[in-house]
Amino acid sequence: MGNSFGNLFKLTSFGESHGISIGGIIEGCLPNIKIDFSLIQDELKRRRPGQSNITTQRKEEDIVEFQSGFLEGKTTGMPIGFIIKNSDHKSKDYSHNSDVYRPSHADYTYDNKFGIRDYRGGGRSSARETAVRIVAGAIAKQILLKLNISFHAFVSEVGNIKIESNYSKLDLTLKNIESNKVRCPVQLKAVEMQSLIENVKKKGDTIGGKITCIIKNTPIGLGEPVFDRLNAELAKAMFSINAVKGFELGSGFDCVAMIGSEHNDEFYIENDVVKTRTNNSGGIQGGISNGEDIYFNVAFKPVATIMQKQKTINTNNENVELMGRGRHDPCVVPRAVPIVEAMAAMVILDYYLIQKSKKL
Amino acid sequence: MGNSFGNLFKLTSFGESHGISIGGIIEGCLPNIKIDFSLIQDELKRRRPGQSNITTQRKEEDIVEFQSGFLEGKTTGMPIGFIIKNSDHKSKDYSHNSDVYRPSHADYTYDNKFGIRDYRGGGRSSARETAVRIVAGAIAKQILLKLNISFHAFVSEVGNIKIESNYSKLDLTLKNIESNKVRCPVQLKAVEMQSLIENVKKKGDTIGGKITCIIKNTPIGLGEPVFDRLNAELAKAMFSINAVKGFELGSGFDCVAMIGSEHNDEFYIENDVVKTRTNNSGGIQGGISNGEDIYFNVAFKPVATIMQKQKTINTNNENVELMGRGRHDPCVVPRAVPIVEAMAAMVILDYYLIQKSKKL
Amino acid sequence: MGNSFGNLFKLTSFGESHGISIGGIIEGCLPNIKIDFSLIQDELKRRRPGQSNITTQRKEEDIVEFQSGFLEGKTTGMPIGFIIKNSDHKSKDYSHNSDVYRPSHADYTYDNKFGIRDYRGGGRSSARETAVRIVAGAIAKQILLKLNISFHAFVSEVGNIKIESNYSKLDLTLKNIESNKVRCPVQLKAVEMQSLIENVKKKGDTIGGKITCIIKNTPIGLGEPVFDRLNAELAKAMFSINAVKGFELGSGFDCVAMIGSEHNDEFYIENDVVKTRTNNSGGIQGGISNGEDIYFNVAFKPVATIMQKQKTINTNNENVELMGRGRHDPCVVPRAVPIVEAMAAMVILDYYLIQKSKKL
Amino acid sequence: MGNSFGNLFKLTSFGESHGISIGGIIEGCLPNIKIDFSLIQDELKRRRPGQSNITTQRKEEDIVEFQSGFLEGKTTGMPIGFIIKNSDHKSKDYSHNSDVYRPSHADYTYDNKFGIRDYRGGGRSSARETAVRIVAGAIAKQILLKLNISFHAFVSEVGNIKIESNYSKLDLTLKNIESNKVRCPVQLKAVEMQSLIENVKKKGDTIGGKITCIIKNTPIGLGEPVFDRLNAELAKAMFSINAVKGFELGSGFDCVAMIGSEHNDEFYIENDVVKTRTNNSGGIQGGISNGEDIYFNVAFKPVATIMQKQKTINTNNENVELMGRGRHDPCVVPRAVPIVEAMAAMVILDYYLIQKSKKL
Repeated sequence: MGNSFGNLFKLTSFGESHGISIGGIIEGCLPNIKIDFSLIQDELKRRRPGQSNITTQRKEEDIVEFQSGFLEGKTTGMPIGFIIKNSDHKSKDYSHNSDVYRPSHADYTYDNKFGIRDYRGGGRSSARETAVRIVAGAIAKQILLKLNISFHAFVSEVGNIKIESNYSKLDLTLKNIESNKVRCPVQLKAVEMQSLIENVKKKGDTIGGKITCIIKNTPIGLGEPVFDRLNAELAKAMFSINAVKGFELGSGFDCVAMIGSEHNDEFYIENDVVKTRTNNSGGIQGGISNGEDIYFNVAFKPVATIMQKQKTINTNNENVELMGRGRHDPCVVPRAVPIVEAMAAMVILDYYLIQKSKKL
Repeated sequence: MGNSFGNLFKLTSFGESHGISIGGIIEGCLPNIKIDFSLIQDELKRRRPGQSNITTQRKEEDIVEFQSGFLEGKTTGMPIGFIIKNSDHKSKDYSHNSDVYRPSHADYTYDNKFGIRDYRGGGRSSARETAVRIVAGAIAKQILLKLNISFHAFVSEVGNIKIESNYSKLDLTLKNIESNKVRCPVQLKAVEMQSLIENVKKKGDTIGGKITCIIKNTPIGLGEPVFDRLNAELAKAMFSINAVKGFELGSGFDCVAMIGSEHNDEFYIENDVVKTRTNNSGGIQGGISNGEDIYFNVAFKPVATIMQKQKTINTNNENVELMGRGRHDPCVVPRAVPIVEAMAAMVILDYYLIQKSKKL
Repeated sequence: MGNSFGNLFKLTSFGESHGISIGGIIEGCLPNIKIDFSLIQDELKRRRPGQSNITTQRKEEDIVEFQSGFLEGKTTGMPIGFIIKNSDHKSKDYSHNSDVYRPSHADYTYDNKFGIRDYRGGGRSSARETAVRIVAGAIAKQILLKLNISFHAFVSEVGNIKIESNYSKLDLTLKNIESNKVRCPVQLKAVEMQSLIENVKKKGDTIGGKITCIIKNTPIGLGEPVFDRLNAELAKAMFSINAVKGFELGSGFDCVAMIGSEHNDEFYIENDVVKTRTNNSGGIQGGISNGEDIYFNVAFKPVATIMQKQKTINTNNENVELMGRGRHDPCVVPRAVPIVEAMAAMVILDYYLIQKSKKL
Repeated sequence: MGNSFGNLFKLTSFGESHGISIGGIIEGCLPNIKIDFSLIQDELKRRRPGQSNITTQRKEEDIVEFQSGFLEGKTTGMPIGFIIKNSDHKSKDYSHNSDVYRPSHADYTYDNKFGIRDYRGGGRSSARETAVRIVAGAIAKQILLKLNISFHAFVSEVGNIKIESNYSKLDLTLKNIESNKVRCPVQLKAVEMQSLIENVKKKGDTIGGKITCIIKNTPIGLGEPVFDRLNAELAKAMFSINAVKGFELGSGFDCVAMIGSEHNDEFYIENDVVKTRTNNSGGIQGGISNGEDIYFNVAFKPVATIMQKQKTINTNNENVELMGRGRHDPCVVPRAVPIVEAMAAMVILDYYLIQKSKKL
């Protein structure tokens, strides 16, 4: 348990940050679909370390090597096996941590849970594992694009700098997401965010952030009530990503202060198309997509590794001090944008396939 | 799919608001455990309609009738089947809705998904279904209490009235949760919340709210990285409840504006016990419980049924007006408190059993 | 675990022989399908105790009471909950067994596994539980009949009396299955089998038997290689039935003595239809249905309860003697025929739905 | 679906016969266990092509390369990823089959199911995929041996040559299994079987066979009634192997002709140990292991590829003739022996872990 995600479209993953490779198996991929492999590699580049001065300076090429599941560029319906070799592990960077539990890291809990800990760079708990999700998500996105379904995640908040506009006002700006290092579609905010991240980095500190994701053109009817609601699966998908502390759909936590007459999304019909006047539901009602934009926010905590002295304990249960080392991200959200999209795409394709089984 | 929750401790549920009964099957319940059935019924009472003037006035006795799985008051390890009869359905109340899609309800999405809709009171999409979860949760809670694990959910916010204190300051007040109709442990706030709900109700409107849940004494080591992290499963559990729009663990969305040196939870050891000085992690690190209090917030939207005129469409795709009728909750959070606890208890027991399989 | 069968079309069951009721929840049933409830009851009659002098004389009406999942006679796509009350349990019949482990029964293993045993008539290990499967299977059969898929199980062997003809020669006789108490389509053999069972019964003994099942008109393409082959799932389905000791598909164990040139099923095309000249494959190749008849055999051991004195041990680990009592079947296969069909129908419908998800 | 096996101890596999590699991910492996990697490689050698004159002459080194899940030779509890490169694929051998459906192969069903077929040597339907199972099984066997549980599969029948003795008489001979090419523990029979296989091979034909497997020292209590009985899972495990046509446990199909008083396994206690006088149950009662030897038989059909002319159809739906080519096994059972053991070991370990969750 724990290494698979999805039901009919399913990813099972393996790999630690400092093992030989990370990789996965994708099951349930539709057969007979032409895949553009360069688009998968492009998605990996969006997540790759070392892409700019505001991400970690570790170097990983992150080249995916497919082992199975394709014939002459098309999917065969067979499981897609793939590996991504770990090229730049530099175990030395991490060996000094082998007997210390880093604060707000997973060292302590892994060691207690398993009775053994892979101290090399966090082992399995490293975010390096998310590269595998990118591969599965990139395939899901290609397939869903044939149905016109598209995914638009972006950084909407870093520290106290935030995009103020409602999600629905951002449509024209979404094309800018990749135009800056932060992946914020509002250019002025992007500049401020970048500056903030650089300042935090200089102090050897890190900072939190928020990603918003908009999914367009999801067909009506995806979601399996009552326990496997589409929103419940999206919540789990997002909370399965390292450093996530919050998830909200549509009106989200703002709904607490709202009254029903204001929060309800009235239906109307115009030119034979059913729409809602507002979208506080975030495109999901009763756990099922209603055809409107799905949008949600994901909160990411500041990266736990800081270049400052911290108090902690070691594996002998002694109080000690720890000085951070290594090459880490000062803020995780710029690189987490494609991960959010990948997880969302896996959910939507999986639930799309499930919905296919409702008719004889 | 969609009607089961859990892995080793698993609930499968059935039933619509206006069918003969609702009920479920609990699998994986440990054998040989004495169950106090009156405690289960007590939990059902906490969720029951008609319990106070700030909840719906529908009358349902909600008596659980166990069909299997017990011998002389003890669990046998066999599946526990149970039903709860629907005593007060009054279909007349609902028939006027049969050809109209109520705004922000599940009518429209169910009809589109399944090609058929049970218009009697929302059918399966009614929150009545959650009574079944209470039963499973009450059994899980009894079992976990033998391990000293306890669950304390309460209303922390209604509209713009909120408890301001950090969760950790509330320990002494938790005993007050059941002392007021709102289920808010801070009595002054409870009074204000109740008054607000009553005012909203008079206007035929509804209001949102927030529930905080604290889980005490969870052992270290629960959670299955990477996809089945304990927080991911809790997120899914909470988002599987009707009307939930947000979930946050520990520092939650506040983490966005924090820096790492402030957010990190430093470990220290005192009297041979490992603790953290702060608990922004909310008791879970790397997806695994660390032994600190687990705490999280859940946002509930205002109930969608309001006693006011609203615009919407009907099943013939015509724009129409709808006037709300029936007996509904003006605010869902007071009755949702035991549901949050029930889902949390199911997750913790399930993950506890999974963890048992890590040793030969 | 253990109480669910199926993936997309899934039955979860509960209940012991002497509890209040047995029952189940069917998930994934297609919506909007008119169900003939009398046909479900007819199938229950085929399994019911007391149906003839060669079955147990216990009386159970086995009336299924649906709790949910239907609106005006049609499925809604919601989970179908149902119970079957236990009317004639007569616990007295069984109390004398409470401290003895009956040979070749499940008493000893249940007690050791769970640390507690429901001694009332075998509890969960009683074949009474199979009535629940009949309900799910009867619904699956009705749905599959719309696709022209039909199930024909019959008794092909009791003791040393067997139908000698190849399965393919029996088509014209299949209409006779229900014409005799044994459910053997070859009338002369049925008479012999009945006489044998009556003789065995007089001696207070029991006898084994074999059921053959033919599935007609299965579409090409059902089965999920490599682990979830259609034959693997059928094997599991049959071995999940009480008293089953063997399962073989097509040529079955006879294949051991055959050579490839004789065993291979040559394809040919005639009037645009692809067929195979022989059907040693039993309609399944590479784990996937090929459109030919699927047929298989299931071996059932003699019922373990005999009206004779046997040596065994008691719960104090003492060697004792046990004299059988109660009302039991002298041969299980006549009543097991509808169970085999029910399990087969559940597998085929489930795999049919899975196959629906292979196209965008 | 289809590429995973197991619940808590789970293998997910990928790979086709002519892809870059085959491989898999093992989840749920207990942490902190020292693994002897040479024993894994030894098991692969038992399955490897080209091991003797009575197996295919294809050359595959079958070197497993672990990617993750180990630290300094010990399991970490993390998923174990591994690949086995395909060294000797020689696609030329197979290209002549690309437009013909080979009789009793999976070509026709795969092509119809997926709408695309990997014609290179059978693609995913090739038995090459079973090497992956050997790896997972070899790890399971090492872990189970710490509990003294051992697996002894052997060839008990080829064509009309069979071991006549009851399984229980073979204990002293089990050490001979690896002493001959056939893997038959009775040396005289092994010689006859080998001679028969050689003769069949000379004629360009193939022949069926039977494997018996004995599992020793399984603890009492493994198996999850009612649907996930230990025998049901073993049945599925065996039927998931290529070419299997029958599975029987204990008395198996012989039970059909037996009476209850003869078939029942009487319990007795001797020196404080509970035993049964006979073992027709095959070590499993009510779906749960009873501590006696588990034993079962598996029937394998003659290999479908024969070096003779056969009639069939092509992908244009024309009747054609096909002449077999390539390097194939004349009889599959000698190489299938370790596969049967591997699948059995995976089932037993998985069910052992499940049973661990029955106590608080």
